Amino acid sequence: MQSQITILAPGLLGASVALAAHQRGLASKITVWARRPETRLALAKKEWCHAVCATPEEACRGASLVIICTPVEKIIPLVRQIRPALAPGAIVTDVGSVKSKICRFSHELMPTGCFFVGSHPMAGSEKTGMEHATGDLFERRTCFVTPLLEGTDAAATEQVAAFWTALGSEVSTMTPDEHDEVVAHISHLPHALASVLCSFLHLKNPRWRNFAGNGLKDSTRIASGNPELWREILEQNQDEVVRAVRQFQDELEAFQAALSNGDFFEVANFLERGKEYRDRLRPK
Amino acid sequence: MQSQITILAPGLLGASVALAAHQRGLASKITVWARRPETRLALAKKEWCHAVCATPEEACRGASLVIICTPVEKIIPLVRQIRPALAPGAIVTDVGSVKSKICRFSHELMPTGCFFVGSHPMAGSEKTGMEHATGDLFERRTCFVTPLLEGTDAAATEQVAAFWTALGSEVSTMTPDEHDEVVAHISHLPHALASVLCSFLHLKNPRWRNFAGNGLKDSTRIASGNPELWREILEQNQDEVVRAVRQFQDELEAFQAALSNGDFFEVANFLERGKEYRDRLRPK
Repeated sequence: MQSQITILAPGLLGASVALAAHQRGLASKITVWARRPETRLALAKKEWCHAVCATPEEACRGASLVIICTPVEKIIPLVRQIRPALAPGAIVTDVGSVKSKICRFSHELMPTGCFFVGSHPMAGSEKTGMEHATGDLFERRTCFVTPLLEGTDAAATEQVAAFWTALGSEVSTMTPDEHDEVVAHISHLPHALASVLCSFLHLKNPRWRNFAGNGLKDSTRIASGNPELWREILEQNQDEVVRAVRQFQDELEAFQAALSNGDFFEVANFLERGKEYRDRLRPK
Repeated sequence: MQSQITILAPGLLGASVALAAHQRGLASKITVWARRPETRLALAKKEWCHAVCATPEEACRGASLVIICTPVEKIIPLVRQIRPALAPGAIVTDVGSVKSKICRFSHELMPTGCFFVGSHPMAGSEKTGMEHATGDLFERRTCFVTPLLEGTDAAATEQVAAFWTALGSEVSTMTPDEHDEVVAHISHLPHALASVLCSFLHLKNPRWRNFAGNGLKDSTRIASGNPELWREILEQNQDEVVRAVRQFQDELEAFQAALSNGDFFEVANFLERGKEYRDRLRPK
């Protein structure tokens, strides 16, 4: 149990962490900082929020665990801002979808005796905002915990892993670089494809959208995600995403060549390999 | 109301048509032909099936409306097979996902006084088989009805449109060629992309699949579809699908170039156009 958890920026993820931690009794005190005054007013009525602060520094004072839940571009600036306020022994983590740069810089920024360990819960949806928070958002979801290969404190890593496990997540520990390669493939590439597909269909006859079946709807749901958040994610993970997209382009070119050439044996191979992979994804 | 509806091949779609027509009292008699003896035995216990036949010809005798629900490659051979058995004035339709070739050939094959009008209900799922049939499968779904520009009987087209409307579908009438262009974009291209994405991820570290979030799951659900059925669909709609895939490749190349060049303004444009399109798809 943590003596004080501090949540910086209670959006969908931050508010869900606070709610889940409160429901499971994981902290004596949950302190929250929100940038907007109207959010701070709303927070005062939440039972999972024991103290509301007007600045991140104030919110971090006395915290044993700080969880930064801002969009990825704001994480390093916030770490810089809160470092003078961190209590000895404090552990700082985040929920950003990209890890290499954030983990490297944040580790360097930590005062002696404080520790940064990156996290990335594979939860959330195309919906954003505190009003969609739920206490079971992390249950049975993967949560990456990403200590640096050298330099990250083992005990701090263990505490962060224990926290997500207590929220119901299935923790997987890997280096930030490995993480970024994995999510480029299983999250950022699929997102890019859904966005580019919708962007492409946008150029076509607008009436066609009325005919869409559930296949198109489900396969493009993620394209409804916040464009600004996703621009930041693609920017922070540029190299890995470019690599994944290029490799996918080669695969798509091979498929298109098979289809153009009437090589339906090869077309069927794509469909069968695809089904084999998809059928073995874990059910929700 | 039809005096006798005949369903050829009661898979998910065929059995759902029969069930829905029975529930809504759209036919005095529903006759079904199934290729497999075990299916015919199972049919005998279904209240929505009033007669089971061992041959398609036998099943079509006396039918005012014949609905062919086989995979696309079997439709033209079946039309050829049943033509001698068709009653005067009989209307034949189908539920195939590709229309040009099927409609052209089937129209030519009709005896004088009988009519072929193609249909394509945008219903169904990655599940197949009679056991998944439901009476509401077509409710609020698009159903394409595709008369030839010249030659298809207007009254027959109207009857087919009325039948799908009575099942709850939203009917959209267009030529078979226009249909094939539309579905190449809103159905066959998305399917191909999901299959190629899964086929690509299959080549990568198999452990990564354990980390997949709902985004990957939803965006690739259609890749679980039957590879043989989809190979047939892609084969019958080869030209339009190749054209759509090639145009998508150009769009993906432009996206990749923007990302590689660090032109995040342009990357954001893709994300925003994609979201705009996706948010305006009709809810389920």
